[in-house]
Amino acid sequence: MSADYAKRRQSLRALVAEQSAESGVDALLITDLLNIRYLTGFTGSNAALLVDVSDSQAAEDNTIICTDGRYLTQVAEQVPDLRAEIDRASANRLLELAAGAGTLGYESHVVTVDQYRRFADLFDGDLVRTPGRVEELRMVKDDHEVELLREACAAADVALADLIGGGGIRPDRTEREVARELEFLMLERGADGIAFETIVATGANSAIPHHRPTDAVLAAGDFVKLDFGAMVGGYHSDMTRTYVLGSASDWHRDVYDLVARSQAAGRAALKPGMPVADVDAASRSVIEDAGFGDLFLHGLGHGVGLEIHEAPGIGKAGTGTLLCGAAVTVEPGVYFSGRGGVRIEDTLVVREQDPELLTLTSKDLTVL
Amino acid sequence: MSADYAKRRQSLRALVAEQSAESGVDALLITDLLNIRYLTGFTGSNAALLVDVSDSQAAEDNTIICTDGRYLTQVAEQVPDLRAEIDRASANRLLELAAGAGTLGYESHVVTVDQYRRFADLFDGDLVRTPGRVEELRMVKDDHEVELLREACAAADVALADLIGGGGIRPDRTEREVARELEFLMLERGADGIAFETIVATGANSAIPHHRPTDAVLAAGDFVKLDFGAMVGGYHSDMTRTYVLGSASDWHRDVYDLVARSQAAGRAALKPGMPVADVDAASRSVIEDAGFGDLFLHGLGHGVGLEIHEAPGIGKAGTGTLLCGAAVTVEPGVYFSGRGGVRIEDTLVVREQDPELLTLTSKDLTVL
Repeated sequence: MSADYAKRRQSLRALVAEQSAESGVDALLITDLLNIRYLTGFTGSNAALLVDVSDSQAAEDNTIICTDGRYLTQVAEQVPDLRAEIDRASANRLLELAAGAGTLGYESHVVTVDQYRRFADLFDGDLVRTPGRVEELRMVKDDHEVELLREACAAADVALADLIGGGGIRPDRTEREVARELEFLMLERGADGIAFETIVATGANSAIPHHRPTDAVLAAGDFVKLDFGAMVGGYHSDMTRTYVLGSASDWHRDVYDLVARSQAAGRAALKPGMPVADVDAASRSVIEDAGFGDLFLHGLGHGVGLEIHEAPGIGKAGTGTLLCGAAVTVEPGVYFSGRGGVRIEDTLVVREQDPELLTLTSKDLTVL
Repeated sequence: MSADYAKRRQSLRALVAEQSAESGVDALLITDLLNIRYLTGFTGSNAALLVDVSDSQAAEDNTIICTDGRYLTQVAEQVPDLRAEIDRASANRLLELAAGAGTLGYESHVVTVDQYRRFADLFDGDLVRTPGRVEELRMVKDDHEVELLREACAAADVALADLIGGGGIRPDRTEREVARELEFLMLERGADGIAFETIVATGANSAIPHHRPTDAVLAAGDFVKLDFGAMVGGYHSDMTRTYVLGSASDWHRDVYDLVARSQAAGRAALKPGMPVADVDAASRSVIEDAGFGDLFLHGLGHGVGLEIHEAPGIGKAGTGTLLCGAAVTVEPGVYFSGRGGVRIEDTLVVREQDPELLTLTSKDLTVL
């Protein structure tokens, strides 16, 4: 399946047209590289994109990508359907070409003050702030994006199964060794890269939400928490599983069960139109009711896609509602400082009925 | 050896004091995370830093770092010598605390238009653009930084030696397999991470300057180009070596010898005070004189440190001169499209006399 970039650009035009405050905008200058990738498929490290958003029939013909000479071949291959310009100063070149465009929207959430000054010097029309338009589109994933997310999640699932199957999570290994092997296995199993720095946290370290792997040695009686992801085609997976080493005590079972119930409640709350703060509350209340609300130290989840953290944020103070097709994580945790903690996290897609689970590794309490 | 962050902050104060145009600036608001790391040692993902740059005796006491609750313990450990504030909106909090500071410089090369609007709403004094001040300091590496660069380069050297010693670069393996093993070995040999996506390019692919490893299979008669680096303590190494598989033809020898001579000339030109354009010319002229100037498709090199590409850029159009203590790469290449190419790259530190070579792997023509 290939991505329908022209359709994404058409959605951007529709979005701008909807916003009456932007009714006068004739074109958007896109300078965020991930937004350019989303709208065109181009993956080079230097580019700018001028999207004609007028209701002209020629809007696609007037849409131009610019990159530098290193990407001459690549831009022709990746973006055969758009006019391409070659210039090292890609945004500046497009501003020259946009002369006479009237009103140009720019990504004021990305463009720096110094860049803006250059833009204003170069462009004779009106520049207006149009922050976050493409990010808004990116919240809802199309079929091609879900397929890539699915592949990324599968690479992580298979790598973890291989790691466990090979006895890779065992006493006397260090956190660092386990993290390294897991990353290696993800690459072996189809990942183009690692989605983020892998977390392996054992024993008391498992109570640190974002622990960086150390030479700490895994030992019987530990919770071992692994938070990791694979990248496929630019899309990130994100999964956390927590295991018990040796044998599970009642404490292990109680904490694990609490987090698992909280996580299930969070997943069940993923419905189109649901306020994100309510999704957080659905999961958090399970932990609060057990008296451990102050040990759940972070938000419930976040959007995931071309970035590992993107809109929507799902937390107490989050605003807005879930959209059908949003890809999000659900990751409650309870952390007993100095003793250990549990987090369980899936990546899912919000659907009309039940959400679609992309990370398929079992969440049953597992003793290794 | 530990880094002397207080000294770096003092250097920043001296730099601002030198710039007469900024003589009225009372404090700098630093929001770039790498600049904050450089000035304080803090490595969290959310922070802002307010540096009092007045000539007050209390300048250090008035210097404040702000981060969020996730980093409460970390900021106390990593930055014991500065006042720390905890607030999720770290820059906004510091702007409140800076009320009455008079004139505040901000990083206009990093701060977005939307951020600036919030800053201007929150701060009642004058905001002035002070772009790139910390980057200017970062060009010259102190002893602690050179030590980390040396360790990063050593991890890459040892990993490559292991790869070759184990027969890892051989016909019938794919580029991807070789890249993966090399990355794994760097992590085994002391790297905290990979400095950038490893390039392994064989045969005709070696003529693509920035080729991404594919399933292309190494074969006798190929040039195999490896461009890779390790990261240690946040510092990046960068090295390229090109090998011949099977046996070397006269063409292989001639191309390799040309690039090796060009690279040696570039290294020899690394002297304090030398215009960067002249360093590029010293290396490029060797290739131009041989009639292949149009096959050397990129600049000669770049600064390296907390970023894989940082100031100074060393190219034809580069401005400025080399400073003693700058860490840079020297990486000429010649690329015969459809046939193969050679690049040879070292990371070095500019010294009063000869530059200090950090990447120690042999550059003699090697047939594997």
